[in-house]
Amino acid sequence: MDIEKVNSMDFGEFMDVFGNVIERCPLIAAAVWSKRPFSDLGDLEKHFFAFIDGLPLSGQEGVLRCHPELAGRELQWGRLTAESQREQSAAGLQNLGAAERLRLSELTAQYRARFGFPFVLAVRLSDPAAAPRELARRLRCPPAQELRTALGEVKKICHLRLADLLGEQP
Amino acid sequence: MDIEKVNSMDFGEFMDVFGNVIERCPLIAAAVWSKRPFSDLGDLEKHFFAFIDGLPLSGQEGVLRCHPELAGRELQWGRLTAESQREQSAAGLQNLGAAERLRLSELTAQYRARFGFPFVLAVRLSDPAAAPRELARRLRCPPAQELRTALGEVKKICHLRLADLLGEQP
Repeated sequence: MDIEKVNSMDFGEFMDVFGNVIERCPLIAAAVWSKRPFSDLGDLEKHFFAFIDGLPLSGQEGVLRCHPELAGRELQWGRLTAESQREQSAAGLQNLGAAERLRLSELTAQYRARFGFPFVLAVRLSDPAAAPRELARRLRCPPAQELRTALGEVKKICHLRLADLLGEQP
Repeated sequence: MDIEKVNSMDFGEFMDVFGNVIERCPLIAAAVWSKRPFSDLGDLEKHFFAFIDGLPLSGQEGVLRCHPELAGRELQWGRLTAESQREQSAAGLQNLGAAERLRLSELTAQYRARFGFPFVLAVRLSDPAAAPRELARRLRCPPAQELRTALGEVKKICHLRLADLLGEQP
């Protein structure tokens, strides 16, 4: 799909395609629609990122809270969005042993209790063994720094999803 | 439900209850969660409104675009959110004759083409005959004024939904 195709979409088509590049935040795609026409993938992506950067702190925390738990019940029960299901499955998180799953679930609960949002990680860029290590490391970060790190992961996920949709090498 | 109950909810419960008081914008409820505890219904509502007011123009247009068409195909096909389905049905919009439906559909298409978002009306506060009249009137308004009017309707809908949930007289 090239950028001319994107620019020729009507609103419904645009939402069907890009509504979930920021996980469960269709409002953001609906806002980015105001910025048409886009010159290329980078331009389209820039508007998603700028919208997130322009949100107040509560809104940025809200974006993070719209994300699912990593290797959580929604993955087990097949209730993730199609994108998250694919990403978490491809990262091997569906095939964890009981002990590993319990360990991850303890860490993600601690993380959520400490920061007030779930642990977000662009799992396509890491291996399954890296997730608990990274989680344990980020658990010790100061909250303001961790918010920035987590939003950076949201943007990496957005970049990968956009690249997939537009058929470009990420 | 009193405000102590609201303040005692965990995030999942809060989203189950308040996730759609702004139609199809769970991000906003997820952001308002940052503002706990709430002193009363008015305080809770104030945070929803303040979030919308603080959005850039594209975000405010995005909120409006997340709303369904009035008396559109989603109503016919039963694909609205539960709240919208109830509101549009109670306003008698499901029982329009073919001529009235066609007339409304022409007007809502004109409205969307002119302003770039669907016609939003707190239908519980008007009668079915008023909808096409109000639509024809608002179609002639300047865009900046109409954006303010439409966001005012979003807030009226939010107010009514919150009052329903908390069992207060709106």
